[in-house]
Amino acid sequence: MIELSRDYAERLDRDDELAPLREQFVIADEDLLYMDGNSLGRLPRNAAAKAQRLVEHEWGETLIGGWNRGWYEAPLRVGDTIGSLIGAAAGQVAVTDSTSVNLYKLVIAALRLRPGRHRIVTDTLNFPSDYYIIQGAIDLLSAGHDLVRAGSRDGGVTADVDELVRSIDSDTALIVLSHVAFRSGYLYDVQRITQAAHAEGALIIWDLSHSVGALPIELDGCKADFAVGCTYKYLNGGPGAPAFLYVNRALQETAASPIWGWFGRETPFAFDPDYAPARGIVRFLAGTPPILSLLTMEAALEPTVGAGIAAIRRKSVSQTEYLIALIDLLLSPLGFELASPRNPAQRGSHVSVRHNECYRIAQALTAELNVIPDFREPDIIRFGCAPLYTTYVDIWETVQRTRRVIADRLFETYSATRHGVT
Amino acid sequence: MIELSRDYAERLDRDDELAPLREQFVIADEDLLYMDGNSLGRLPRNAAAKAQRLVEHEWGETLIGGWNRGWYEAPLRVGDTIGSLIGAAAGQVAVTDSTSVNLYKLVIAALRLRPGRHRIVTDTLNFPSDYYIIQGAIDLLSAGHDLVRAGSRDGGVTADVDELVRSIDSDTALIVLSHVAFRSGYLYDVQRITQAAHAEGALIIWDLSHSVGALPIELDGCKADFAVGCTYKYLNGGPGAPAFLYVNRALQETAASPIWGWFGRETPFAFDPDYAPARGIVRFLAGTPPILSLLTMEAALEPTVGAGIAAIRRKSVSQTEYLIALIDLLLSPLGFELASPRNPAQRGSHVSVRHNECYRIAQALTAELNVIPDFREPDIIRFGCAPLYTTYVDIWETVQRTRRVIADRLFETYSATRHGVT
Repeated sequence: MIELSRDYAERLDRDDELAPLREQFVIADEDLLYMDGNSLGRLPRNAAAKAQRLVEHEWGETLIGGWNRGWYEAPLRVGDTIGSLIGAAAGQVAVTDSTSVNLYKLVIAALRLRPGRHRIVTDTLNFPSDYYIIQGAIDLLSAGHDLVRAGSRDGGVTADVDELVRSIDSDTALIVLSHVAFRSGYLYDVQRITQAAHAEGALIIWDLSHSVGALPIELDGCKADFAVGCTYKYLNGGPGAPAFLYVNRALQETAASPIWGWFGRETPFAFDPDYAPARGIVRFLAGTPPILSLLTMEAALEPTVGAGIAAIRRKSVSQTEYLIALIDLLLSPLGFELASPRNPAQRGSHVSVRHNECYRIAQALTAELNVIPDFREPDIIRFGCAPLYTTYVDIWETVQRTRRVIADRLFETYSATRHGVT
Repeated sequence: MIELSRDYAERLDRDDELAPLREQFVIADEDLLYMDGNSLGRLPRNAAAKAQRLVEHEWGETLIGGWNRGWYEAPLRVGDTIGSLIGAAAGQVAVTDSTSVNLYKLVIAALRLRPGRHRIVTDTLNFPSDYYIIQGAIDLLSAGHDLVRAGSRDGGVTADVDELVRSIDSDTALIVLSHVAFRSGYLYDVQRITQAAHAEGALIIWDLSHSVGALPIELDGCKADFAVGCTYKYLNGGPGAPAFLYVNRALQETAASPIWGWFGRETPFAFDPDYAPARGIVRFLAGTPPILSLLTMEAALEPTVGAGIAAIRRKSVSQTEYLIALIDLLLSPLGFELASPRNPAQRGSHVSVRHNECYRIAQALTAELNVIPDFREPDIIRFGCAPLYTTYVDIWETVQRTRRVIADRLFETYSATRHGVT
């Protein structure tokens, strides 16, 4: 049973095996409650050091020679490191492009592997950008594909997995889902849904953007076909750090990227006039990767790899359970409604609340009380627990300050007119 | 008439109006002759300072708030700065993705604007990566497109523009050319070829990778349809810095990117479930851009913008003329053959030489004599003149050291077996 005191939160921090990891991050303002590591992770100290070395020494001094000293191999080397976090054996993950561009490559590749099938299944909890990419692919291919969105339960909090599974039929080419839903934090059963896809002969793409680095993922174990994900949330890779894609080894010789870039060609520096895809995951690379962003992100992975996903998940569950208990006791009486699953087995590492003044509440939290959560249309605030640096006291204090916004009616001076970009 | 002495080179440096700009770059080793700014530009001091501020302050301290403090608008803001270097009025250039991905978007967009036409024209001097992207688009669209490559003259040194223009017919959808050829440095007449394309109702994409930042470009003035280019060569943006694309305003409402990313949507943070392209150049953005690479590159543009393209071109022509004169006098007797146009109006900012031992000569230059040129298959060495920091003494000294490689037969200890990636 949790206690409501700050002392109790401090005790939890003292007992936390991962607490020392916070020292590995730059914390410029100890009073700031940064509850948005699920959107942009904090800066790891070694990433800052790497960025400076990379610019001043690798670019500034070794110049073009950097390509022969670790830059060229980076997309696959860093891919294998990320692979170790998502249950992918070596040679199946590449770091390249953005999540959107990678999803585009894989959607096209998958649809071309299932000619004659017309359904693409997702659900209403998925990230809209994933819909857009699919809609663009459908428009381009002009082959009569339909995007089918299965519904949700509990007012958009949990997936209706039964409906989702029923939506997959023998005309289904592809299923595209986010592993953790961006609004509610709902966590899907990868194994069950992947099996359901395969039972009908369909392929599946998992978008791991909101789960990678926060919880165990077993792509090989679940026989997933494809996955994409971003590296700037729980992996702390830095704003817009390059994304990754996973192609199961079983599909690597038949699946093809539509973007035939030179980094995906066999022997690109032979400058052969005709394209021939490289063997393996390399063929899903396209152009020259953004090295400053990529190698800074590589360094940023170290705290995650060091802590290990199992320990991160244990703390994440403990923190989101604690946060939900405080929400129940302290925020529900003020009109907040939990908008995340109560079952930790169905929940990622952020917790959402709903309130009809959330847009103004979020503004007041940031401007007046030094709390950074994030707001999502139309009425959601998300609090992200990033186990590498979020403390239990951060969580306790976040709930206290949120109460204050309501109690002191601090939100009332803010406009409900939307602006801002994140 | 040039003189062969080092004194003469020193005099040219003293008279050079751009000479002070070299101070704006990090020069760690004054003895190093870096003649490869056409592959990877040197590190501008202010880019190094920006990278550090960006990581430690913007990411480390403002965290997610950085998106509201200049990150979000960066693709168009930096695009407009690059636009000012290529004759593009504001609102027509965006920085996003890699050159390959951008070329892919524009090839698909262009082919969809010319349905029923089957020819895509390029020539044998183009960069192979551009062929690959076109080949991939042809394969994907399965609409019977043919890639036609017009020939060259002078053993691959100059384009056969007459043949090129004759290749454009009423069945031609698209012409794709590099503005400056990567091997010989041949510089195309944008106006003439664009007019020839339009006369047949075809569209044209110019790849500016080897010209941007080194010479005047007038995209609007020539009524070019589309362009792409990279930012890590003469623009000094850093390894793999994001690329740019140009879409003429006249085409912005009809052309569409096949990659429907959220950054290209109207009001992306409304999280609407259906895609609707943003107005203007924004619709050619895709996913979240790599901010560290992008904003470091923005700072790196300052020396180019400060110097002005006219002054850069004057010095570039003067330097390549000087280099060619030294090649004629000092390297031709040793078996080197000039592999770049003699007419400066047909030449970019690098000068190529051919020798059947070029692969071993390039290795010896770098390993023994501290010169970095670059080698291109099968028998080419390119010497890049980057007017912002290349000195006349660098050029003089490069020719002296190249003579020494032959005179002392230094290349003979190196293997002719290909390795390395750049």
